Amino acid sequence: MSSAPAALRIVLDWGTSSFRAFLISAEGRIVDRIESGQGIQSVPGGDFASVLAAAIAPWRAAHGPLPIYAAGMIGSRNGWVELPYAPCPATSDDLAAQTRSLTLDQGDRIVFIPGLKDPSAHPFPDVMRGEETQLIGLGLDRDAVVVLPGTHSKWARIESGRIKRFRTFVTGEIFGTLSRHSFLSKVAVAPAAPDEAAFTKGAQLALSDDPAAGGLLTRLFALRTGYLAGELPPESLTDYLSGLIIGAEFREAMLAGWCAAGDTVTVVGDDDLVALYMRCAKLAGLAPVQGPADAAVRGTLAIARQVEARGAPAPT
Amino acid sequence: MSSAPAALRIVLDWGTSSFRAFLISAEGRIVDRIESGQGIQSVPGGDFASVLAAAIAPWRAAHGPLPIYAAGMIGSRNGWVELPYAPCPATSDDLAAQTRSLTLDQGDRIVFIPGLKDPSAHPFPDVMRGEETQLIGLGLDRDAVVVLPGTHSKWARIESGRIKRFRTFVTGEIFGTLSRHSFLSKVAVAPAAPDEAAFTKGAQLALSDDPAAGGLLTRLFALRTGYLAGELPPESLTDYLSGLIIGAEFREAMLAGWCAAGDTVTVVGDDDLVALYMRCAKLAGLAPVQGPADAAVRGTLAIARQVEARGAPAPT
Repeated sequence: MSSAPAALRIVLDWGTSSFRAFLISAEGRIVDRIESGQGIQSVPGGDFASVLAAAIAPWRAAHGPLPIYAAGMIGSRNGWVELPYAPCPATSDDLAAQTRSLTLDQGDRIVFIPGLKDPSAHPFPDVMRGEETQLIGLGLDRDAVVVLPGTHSKWARIESGRIKRFRTFVTGEIFGTLSRHSFLSKVAVAPAAPDEAAFTKGAQLALSDDPAAGGLLTRLFALRTGYLAGELPPESLTDYLSGLIIGAEFREAMLAGWCAAGDTVTVVGDDDLVALYMRCAKLAGLAPVQGPADAAVRGTLAIARQVEARGAPAPT
Repeated sequence: MSSAPAALRIVLDWGTSSFRAFLISAEGRIVDRIESGQGIQSVPGGDFASVLAAAIAPWRAAHGPLPIYAAGMIGSRNGWVELPYAPCPATSDDLAAQTRSLTLDQGDRIVFIPGLKDPSAHPFPDVMRGEETQLIGLGLDRDAVVVLPGTHSKWARIESGRIKRFRTFVTGEIFGTLSRHSFLSKVAVAPAAPDEAAFTKGAQLALSDDPAAGGLLTRLFALRTGYLAGELPPESLTDYLSGLIIGAEFREAMLAGWCAAGDTVTVVGDDDLVALYMRCAKLAGLAPVQGPADAAVRGTLAIARQVEARGAPAPT
């Protein structure tokens, strides 16, 4: 009979198009991980319990039932249970207080962490699901402006130990739809290595504050005119677009007062976008610092400990 | 034997995804028209001559060979012949001087009208193919700021009898890709009638000059937050998006100095977009006037007369 360590936990980051589970030791170390493309949108009949059971079967076999902490779109309208958003400003304890739990057939308990909403956003409250764990994982002890790159990038302000406010930019979505469905999909050629010069040129155009140079809708046409003029070869188009769109996000964020030249911003993420956002931040005259790649796991674990300190959360 | 009127002409507007031919009387009246979806991108093997011959066969049968004047993407790299762009500032005579002709097997002559480029655009020269005929058709005798709605909307300045400069906005392309390929394609429902209130709300948000309200990348997320908050029903999403994007075009154009509140702008086009642009212009505090729907035919015809006055254009 195997002796299971007392305080193993499972951290679940179950999003729209990906499934990621982490087995975490009592000390907070990642012991094992399971990743797949089975996001919530591809779960047949909404049978999340069966998909989860199959995915973590090896861990259950080795360790028996374990507490599971889940963040992300799994707690949304299209997920397993729909949790109301916790309002900003919010501490990690506010999030812990608004978790909901479900007891599974095997006897383990899954705790869902709520997303956040920012009622100060105009014209509708802004929302996030999952990124709040990255912010908690970065830590709320120091005031900061944080950029979380993604399909829907978030800019968040940490102030006085709370997530004060945040705003969403559809940067990755625009990049993706234009890459796949504009003339780029016909003429762009994947470069052998990322074309950093093209990214920089695109970002510099987007960051320009010359009003005569227009805004995003006119700057995006530079892809076509640059291609037609022979100035942007097919291998450069995608990186130029990436620079243009990420640069536009920084310009919008700076115009909206999130930060100004010389300010420090913290970039938090775990994929290739982090390096691009770091580069763009420098081009924008900011002083970027990179947050921990495992911020989401750290944050979920911090909330888990607060949930356990509070006693069992309310069932869903 | 039928007696053909002496001065019939054919005006051809052959674009990427549509074919339109007009039979024009000596007085400039549209006598007949042929339209199809056979744009230049769907011409097998680039055999434009055969597609044209089949399309206008009834006119040739009735009237014999006729002079043909062609504008639009048919004169581009992906078209029949690639004409260099004429540079701005340009008069209609400048365009006439840079036409190129081709004699067809049946003995008729086709004259291609060049597009325009604006070398003052940053970072690459801006370009148009086809819209220059709409500007000529509107008339260059009065100074004006002209908006030409479309997949790639154009703003142009007419000054001292010339097309002085212009700039492109990828408004229709962004609207199209987001309508078809974002979450809208899953949740939006076509309304029974256009939702004018939703269009207005979207445009007002986009026209807001409150910097804290962000720019286009963050305002586009309002579609999702408004939907989540129950404030934007599925039937309103597409019109709200339309207002947001067209409003963003006006805001960019105004910030770039194309016009200011109180100014007159002329909207030229022949489809449903004209009414939307007229409405958005009013919301932006402008005084819009509507140009003739047949501006493209009028302009092509004006250039045709100048070509004929100059004698035969150079062969391609």
